[in-house]
Amino acid sequence: MIFGGIETGGTKTVCAVGTGPDDIREEARFPTDNPDATIGGCIDMFKRWQPDLAAVGIASFGPVDLDPGSDTYGYVTTTPKPNWQYINLAGQVRDALGVPVNFDTDCNGAALGEHMWGAARGVDTFIYLTVGTGIGGGGMVGGQMLHGMLHPEMGHVTVPHDWEQDPYEGWCPYHGDCLEGLAAGPALEGRWRAKGETLPPEHPAWPLEAQYLASGIINMLYVLSPQVVILGGGVMDNRFLYGMVRKEVLRQMNGYLRVPRLLDSLESFIVPPALGNKSGVLGAIALAARARA
Amino acid sequence: MIFGGIETGGTKTVCAVGTGPDDIREEARFPTDNPDATIGGCIDMFKRWQPDLAAVGIASFGPVDLDPGSDTYGYVTTTPKPNWQYINLAGQVRDALGVPVNFDTDCNGAALGEHMWGAARGVDTFIYLTVGTGIGGGGMVGGQMLHGMLHPEMGHVTVPHDWEQDPYEGWCPYHGDCLEGLAAGPALEGRWRAKGETLPPEHPAWPLEAQYLASGIINMLYVLSPQVVILGGGVMDNRFLYGMVRKEVLRQMNGYLRVPRLLDSLESFIVPPALGNKSGVLGAIALAARARA
Repeated sequence: MIFGGIETGGTKTVCAVGTGPDDIREEARFPTDNPDATIGGCIDMFKRWQPDLAAVGIASFGPVDLDPGSDTYGYVTTTPKPNWQYINLAGQVRDALGVPVNFDTDCNGAALGEHMWGAARGVDTFIYLTVGTGIGGGGMVGGQMLHGMLHPEMGHVTVPHDWEQDPYEGWCPYHGDCLEGLAAGPALEGRWRAKGETLPPEHPAWPLEAQYLASGIINMLYVLSPQVVILGGGVMDNRFLYGMVRKEVLRQMNGYLRVPRLLDSLESFIVPPALGNKSGVLGAIALAARARA
Repeated sequence: MIFGGIETGGTKTVCAVGTGPDDIREEARFPTDNPDATIGGCIDMFKRWQPDLAAVGIASFGPVDLDPGSDTYGYVTTTPKPNWQYINLAGQVRDALGVPVNFDTDCNGAALGEHMWGAARGVDTFIYLTVGTGIGGGGMVGGQMLHGMLHPEMGHVTVPHDWEQDPYEGWCPYHGDCLEGLAAGPALEGRWRAKGETLPPEHPAWPLEAQYLASGIINMLYVLSPQVVILGGGVMDNRFLYGMVRKEVLRQMNGYLRVPRLLDSLESFIVPPALGNKSGVLGAIALAARARA
């Protein structure tokens, strides 16, 4: 029994066949441009593994329709990405292969990967947040993936805008200065007129970045009380940010939550993904293992 | 088989025996002052129902310790309430009665009550928020109560402070202008120097109140994507606030989530508790029915 996993991202799609991090039999990458070519490439690869292929998991960029009762269940819906509006991603894969397909957001997929094999092993209530070109989040509560009415959109939580230090208005086309508008990659670039990766650790960009990320994380803490917060994405490749974010979380909580796990071991509470950039595609394989016929 | 429920609140404690809203056999109220008297009063009442009493549920004001592996599991912990710091609420009840006890926050209890018999029937991912002397929240994700590292503290999410309209600094001793600091009862009183219940519907207090509540609700939407948001508590006795909050939620989301349930039927998305002020004690009875020996 073997599983297929697809992680679709804004620029590239990763496709793999296997059963877990130590058992990937084949892996391929496709540009996420023309949906027929991208989805077709994945299907062709999976076909070579039939009849052993038991199920496929898909961790997709969004917004996606996760409501099993909906006519557009399994679709990528109102994305601004050209050619990808209302694409029946899960349905095409299921129809072409005749196997069960489990469909979720990219962030929930990555969260599940980290839960199975990474930084959230043994923990059933946690958040996975990715800080890159955008900010997205997924996770679990009591072992259940975060779904609900739609799916989380954690990047868009409100955070106090520090106008005194930061006259930058924020770039989110919907909310302006939500967390994504103030702290994703494009905000760093818009505010400092330089790409994040070119700004040195002592640059004033970083304390401000940590301040906004901490405000967002505190909102998530207060709403669902995670046991672990996994912070991934390109912006977090600046490893010094982890320590700054942890300190800011403590400073802004100002002693409110007196929980030993927070006060004594913040290093194991706010952590990088253990699977690195493989959380998503491995999560897709884990989604496949949970697929129902 | 019959269950006992205890709802401890800041000023009074409600204690009931029964199996649900249509079957309450006995009910009593005690002031929440001296823990021995309050807890003892509940125990005495429950003793009269033995041996039929199968279990007790407790929905308590917090912070409480919900970690079954902790030495202080079942305690009210660092509350500012005099005499109630580190009181072994669940343990005292269990030891006196010899029945299983299920212990949770007051807001999770109320959420469970609404899930069993009220506004969240048939829905497994939702939030219950109470806006009164403080702001607290509970709820479920995929049918699991919100626990995690501790328990939700939804009242303390950050919201954008509208300094232009509102120079009031906020009264939260930890965060100043978090949601509770800006929108709970004491904020209304601190800002307008009048009790909320004396301010007429056309008073400028209310659009500002709706603005802050909507910002907080949007944070909760984006973090866990609830199917329903139940808004209770004394401040929401001003019924005109529901319509104002719904409008503000739409205005601040600014078209970001294009979900029919939000756009077409906001009246069934942001709702009052169907059990009124009985959500908590009925939730405690529902907690008892889920208690494990």
